[in-house]
Amino acid sequence: MLILKLGGSVVTHKDEYMSAHTGNIKRLAEEIAEADAYPLVIVHGGGSFGHPVAKKHGIADGMVDRSQVFGFSETHQAMVKLNEVIVDLLLKAGVPAFAISPSSMLRTDGRRLNELDTGLVKKFIELSMVPVLYGDAVLDSDQSFAILSGDQLIAKLSNDLGAGRVIFGSDVDGIFTDNPKLNPDARLIETVSISGNEANVGDTTHTDVTGGMLGKLSEAAEAVRGGADVLMVNALVPGRVKAALRGEKVIGTVLTL
Amino acid sequence: MLILKLGGSVVTHKDEYMSAHTGNIKRLAEEIAEADAYPLVIVHGGGSFGHPVAKKHGIADGMVDRSQVFGFSETHQAMVKLNEVIVDLLLKAGVPAFAISPSSMLRTDGRRLNELDTGLVKKFIELSMVPVLYGDAVLDSDQSFAILSGDQLIAKLSNDLGAGRVIFGSDVDGIFTDNPKLNPDARLIETVSISGNEANVGDTTHTDVTGGMLGKLSEAAEAVRGGADVLMVNALVPGRVKAALRGEKVIGTVLTL
Repeated sequence: MLILKLGGSVVTHKDEYMSAHTGNIKRLAEEIAEADAYPLVIVHGGGSFGHPVAKKHGIADGMVDRSQVFGFSETHQAMVKLNEVIVDLLLKAGVPAFAISPSSMLRTDGRRLNELDTGLVKKFIELSMVPVLYGDAVLDSDQSFAILSGDQLIAKLSNDLGAGRVIFGSDVDGIFTDNPKLNPDARLIETVSISGNEANVGDTTHTDVTGGMLGKLSEAAEAVRGGADVLMVNALVPGRVKAALRGEKVIGTVLTL
Repeated sequence: MLILKLGGSVVTHKDEYMSAHTGNIKRLAEEIAEADAYPLVIVHGGGSFGHPVAKKHGIADGMVDRSQVFGFSETHQAMVKLNEVIVDLLLKAGVPAFAISPSSMLRTDGRRLNELDTGLVKKFIELSMVPVLYGDAVLDSDQSFAILSGDQLIAKLSNDLGAGRVIFGSDVDGIFTDNPKLNPDARLIETVSISGNEANVGDTTHTDVTGGMLGKLSEAAEAVRGGADVLMVNALVPGRVKAALRGEKVIGTVLTL
């Protein structure tokens, strides 16, 4: 089984409030259809949909004031709107996608997704469908509500469903020796060992200042430990996601134990 | 606890494909906010969103051909779009609504909702939020997928959550002695006894040809047997839903044992 992450920087215009990047989504939907690599689960990030709304209302830190329930719901609504665009375009491209709302099926405990009933997701897969989930505003047992990142969801799904390969599609080629946007000598690291401990992963990310890479690596390391091949590729470059789904050699960073 | 059904004929323009009746939704959102009657769960129907798509692809009868998975997903997508409009307008009116996607949380067995984990719905209610669910295209253990009507969902929610009152808001005043649109002498029946057997309910509906009333009555009878006060009111008449939520005397039909 494959899991594909479509990063928020890929599926949205990050600097335009609640603006879906339909050009990228359409191209990626076609690549996914052409790759014809199933079973597949897709998880996408929030980009300019979920993040600004969640930030405005302080949703990630949980409920401090009851009025925040409106911001909590609005964060979810924003994600539903983005998910809708993505699923519609996947269906149009011929991918049998089905929208699954994380906040309708799970809760976190202290911001962590410790338990997940994957029964429903498995059933969709058995029917040859492609569940499409996303980072979402979810209920939390400790702080009333929280933000569940798409990356944390992927780590859990990968381990519980026994994924063979997890592909993180973002707006960079992978992990670099330094920030490639600032240092022209920065080199792409083709293989990064997570070496079974978080510290190593932390060190590695010092060499990359791309937003969210540390968190992404920490979650991705979980999937590696669970037995999945984890690959980070640039989803903005046409053909990369398609090749990665097909299992072809592609420019990117492979995470290993 | 209260459960309010907003019928598809109220929240959509029934004769216009995928057209939300934002005027009705906005007014009802304001009535719900003004009624200030919590805890509350809202369930809405499909009207011109879910029904035409489901019918086109034969979703209610289950999977015969694998290509139907696209129609199955499109039916859900249509319902998500309608739900989005309703939740957005509820939030705007000051109702702490939260969208819950039935197909992400439950499965039917042979078109019946026999088991439902209401844990998540209860948690939303505990946080003073108003879960907003809907009739949906859902997975089914016998026929791969099915249509779960909003009315069946209400019967199950009412019994499992122990609702005190269930209000069905539709486009008619309630149950009549004859079809009020054809017979000017038709009288509204203020109280209908379900008398513990389906036959009686079936007889009653002979006097009303409004689409879907038989199915609605059969599900509503379940809620009555579960101990809820069940009331049918005309949600097109301003003030009716608000009064019903407040527990005031209102024109409509009360179902009793």
